[in-house]
Amino acid sequence: MQRSIDLAEVVKLNHGYARSIDEDALETWPDFFAEDCLYRITTADNYARGYEAGLMYADTRAMLEDRVKSLRIANVYERHRYRHILGMPAVSEASGADICSETSFVVIRIMRDGTLTVFATGKYVDRMRQDESGRLVFSERIVVCDNSNVDALLAIPL
Amino acid sequence: MQRSIDLAEVVKLNHGYARSIDEDALETWPDFFAEDCLYRITTADNYARGYEAGLMYADTRAMLEDRVKSLRIANVYERHRYRHILGMPAVSEASGADICSETSFVVIRIMRDGTLTVFATGKYVDRMRQDESGRLVFSERIVVCDNSNVDALLAIPL
Amino acid sequence: MQRSIDLAEVVKLNHGYARSIDEDALETWPDFFAEDCLYRITTADNYARGYEAGLMYADTRAMLEDRVKSLRIANVYERHRYRHILGMPAVSEASGADICSETSFVVIRIMRDGTLTVFATGKYVDRMRQDESGRLVFSERIVVCDNSNVDALLAIPL
Repeated sequence: MQRSIDLAEVVKLNHGYARSIDEDALETWPDFFAEDCLYRITTADNYARGYEAGLMYADTRAMLEDRVKSLRIANVYERHRYRHILGMPAVSEASGADICSETSFVVIRIMRDGTLTVFATGKYVDRMRQDESGRLVFSERIVVCDNSNVDALLAIPL
Repeated sequence: MQRSIDLAEVVKLNHGYARSIDEDALETWPDFFAEDCLYRITTADNYARGYEAGLMYADTRAMLEDRVKSLRIANVYERHRYRHILGMPAVSEASGADICSETSFVVIRIMRDGTLTVFATGKYVDRMRQDESGRLVFSERIVVCDNSNVDALLAIPL
Repeated sequence: MQRSIDLAEVVKLNHGYARSIDEDALETWPDFFAEDCLYRITTADNYARGYEAGLMYADTRAMLEDRVKSLRIANVYERHRYRHILGMPAVSEASGADICSETSFVVIRIMRDGTLTVFATGKYVDRMRQDESGRLVFSERIVVCDNSNVDALLAIPL
């Protein structure tokens, strides 16, 4: 039997996820996903049209771990970092064990020289479930960017 | 008899409101207001001085509906969109059935070419009540912008 | 015996603090600290290296009050204001009566001509306790800025 999941847990998952990126603890980032998951970055235009193609795509946690290794080799954190600011998740019930939510985000990019720019805005469209230990994880996270030109600089996950 | 209203409901109202604008579901935006309401956009300077004049003004829900129709004809969403990020409401008790709160906001504007700019910052000064069905709605929302030059580009409600 | 402190209280403290700055009620800003406190602004690089030096430093509430008086004489609010947007605090238990949390922030600066810029991003690393009246206050607030060039314009507390 599933215990009920409340908003506070969804908020905590979202902020833990953002912190793993912002605090340069990327190795812990894949842990926020189920082993069998979907992670996709796309644009609002493509999302509205139902296009499957995305700026980044992974459908297992292993692919996310590979991505982190590549980023470490490429040393992108030497060049820039992010700071996420999140809205409050809008949680909706879903069929079966999964729950769904949408959460607004704004990501500020910090360059090595200290320049701050609004790098991306959008919403996370998520499906979550509890893993075997009862911890909430993403079975699906679609990052829908408002701005369509975000790909040119995309390196660190959003 | 009124049931008590908690912070979670005020948060939900605020985020639902922002989502109706950000997700281009403007037709649902007037539903967040009481039929007999006040909606006003002003600047921090004018608000501090007690000036009534504002950058936008409506005192019925019907006026808000008219505004949405005008925006659809003008097709402003083809040209830009917004993304709101909200603070936590500071709720204070009020006389009678209404409750009051203040909520910080930052609005990012997304142009068609993908340019992101901080468009407006400020606070919502709100009065809320429950409508006949028990749903929380704004009887008054005063949008107090920190920046005094916001009017030049003002088209979509904040 | 201490009563237990919940997330809602930490959220409220954080937002009250930010509001005292954003709403130009700086005289109330020292009240968010214990009399014997630590307030320090530093950069992520220096914080990671364990450097004690900071862009701003105070270790009593009286020093914070002095700082506010200086700011009023310098009239910095005539020249710019801030708007804070905060993440959800990540609260961790601590030894003794104190509790600890980390909270992401983004600060937008508003110039007199209406220009809005992302001035600073980072995280607050906090220790909090209840004062004699049971109110939660900061015994320690370290402001860790992501951007290393923030000092050039630093005037109002973050």
